[in-house]
Amino acid sequence: MSLSEFAIIRKYFATLTTDDSTVQCGIGDDAAILSIPDGMDVVVSMDTLLQDHHFPPDTAPADLGYKALAVNLSDMMAMAAEPKWVLLSLSLPEPDEDWIEKFAAGFGELARQYAISLIGGDLSRGPLSVTVQIQGLLPIGTALRRSRAQRDDLIYVTGTLGDAGVALDIIREKRCIAELHKKHFLQCLNRPEINIAVGIRLRTIANSAIDISDGLLADLGHILEASQLGAEIEIEKLPLSDPMQVSVDKTAAWNYALTAGDDYQLCFTASENRHDQIMSLFNEMNIPVCCIGKTTGTGMLISRMADGTEFKPTGKSYAHF
Amino acid sequence: MSLSEFAIIRKYFATLTTDDSTVQCGIGDDAAILSIPDGMDVVVSMDTLLQDHHFPPDTAPADLGYKALAVNLSDMMAMAAEPKWVLLSLSLPEPDEDWIEKFAAGFGELARQYAISLIGGDLSRGPLSVTVQIQGLLPIGTALRRSRAQRDDLIYVTGTLGDAGVALDIIREKRCIAELHKKHFLQCLNRPEINIAVGIRLRTIANSAIDISDGLLADLGHILEASQLGAEIEIEKLPLSDPMQVSVDKTAAWNYALTAGDDYQLCFTASENRHDQIMSLFNEMNIPVCCIGKTTGTGMLISRMADGTEFKPTGKSYAHF
Repeated sequence: MSLSEFAIIRKYFATLTTDDSTVQCGIGDDAAILSIPDGMDVVVSMDTLLQDHHFPPDTAPADLGYKALAVNLSDMMAMAAEPKWVLLSLSLPEPDEDWIEKFAAGFGELARQYAISLIGGDLSRGPLSVTVQIQGLLPIGTALRRSRAQRDDLIYVTGTLGDAGVALDIIREKRCIAELHKKHFLQCLNRPEINIAVGIRLRTIANSAIDISDGLLADLGHILEASQLGAEIEIEKLPLSDPMQVSVDKTAAWNYALTAGDDYQLCFTASENRHDQIMSLFNEMNIPVCCIGKTTGTGMLISRMADGTEFKPTGKSYAHF
Repeated sequence: MSLSEFAIIRKYFATLTTDDSTVQCGIGDDAAILSIPDGMDVVVSMDTLLQDHHFPPDTAPADLGYKALAVNLSDMMAMAAEPKWVLLSLSLPEPDEDWIEKFAAGFGELARQYAISLIGGDLSRGPLSVTVQIQGLLPIGTALRRSRAQRDDLIYVTGTLGDAGVALDIIREKRCIAELHKKHFLQCLNRPEINIAVGIRLRTIANSAIDISDGLLADLGHILEASQLGAEIEIEKLPLSDPMQVSVDKTAAWNYALTAGDDYQLCFTASENRHDQIMSLFNEMNIPVCCIGKTTGTGMLISRMADGTEFKPTGKSYAHF
């Protein structure tokens, strides 16, 4: 490929800047300049995806482009922020224009869905790695925080859990799944659906929230640690997809649901008296939600079977290091 | 090392959050929340440093920590923004607590100098790479832009040029330098001094600015392209350090000054009638500045010797890809 960094950016990435009056200056200067509307806080986050560590080596470039943005949108959802602007740093072993075009297409597909502007970043030669940095907006003081869970809050999760974990085991050849269901699991891993509206609609309803990226126990654990609480989870209430229920035995399914990462569902807590409101809100949004347990004052996180005995998962949550 | 990602962040990085009332939420949630003062735009930039590509493999961790922040501060300087908050994504082949401690110390040294808060990021296992994302503030409409140079503007650069390029050649064993002077060159490469005040003080004086990261010709070229202008540079006015003048023959020195990257000096243009004001401003700040040429309407960037003949550099500017 003979295109320089600047020519590649112009051809594939500069087109991902939406027509956005808040962007005073986007790609093409030393930095981007953003106008922040009055009454808004800025919410910022950044996530890096490294080959082998965060995604398998044969991940399709379009899926990687999509996912690099999705994992950052997930953080915005969990703060109840509206995602607005992103920076992208991409390093590639070989400049491969076909790869870059597909990556940009996957990234752009999700960016357009939420009218997010790509406003800068860089491109360099090195081991495959993608860093996306995102900024969103939030009316002052309305963020969903990890640290605001209350004792006796009900604990909820959206969607289904553990599917991406099964996909990773399919790819690593640790689990055989019928062809019929494979696609579902791989789709959950490669194209997690992020529902930004969920976070925003929960601003005045939930007490705390976190996105499930490292596994439910690890991430709920962060809420509990930050809020100095414990919790009891009813294991049989964990939401499992139909393909999970027919392809994986129950104990393994619970292990995936509790400890596998990459779900990008929302875990949140709310007062019990919000329960009906929450159920009708999710019904209206047509997004599945489950109440899976309750916070406690004990400081311990315990998963229980229907008969009250404790369930100890065998899996380990995702370790960053 | 037995410390988890979260324990490492708490021990070495959470302490880099300054006491800053604008940070509603820093490290420890899904994202950070920032309060933006009225009347301010937010300026954002991100740079990745990859081993081998951006820095030699034996770079000291403290130098790398310093430099990863410095290159981002340089972008803030070039926009005339005040740097405020940073995110850090660090990937390391092996969790090495001693390395991380030194890296955090180098990073923290520069962060404290400008009271910059580290507000988030991530840590993962992979090929050595550092991404820093920075946000700064700027009174609305006061940014220095690449695209606002005017015809017949004088062209200025701060400090001296080419020293970091000599250091890279020392490390690559392409150039021998007397021990006496080596330290100067390596210091320029590893610990570039960023003078944030320069950008801020030039807000109402300069017409355009860029930081010199890829080499003077390449970066001045970006100003000229964005402003649709040409320029003539007087090669003998290029600011060369004393060690450069005694260690490197003149033609090689000019090549370094024109094409070597990693200088992180400021290149800016201003109307001729601002010249006296600029000279006394830099005198007052005690920072060296040189007028090296003038913009033209030709669209061509030409370097001339004192006798008017053209000087064609043999070096190539830094290529990202």
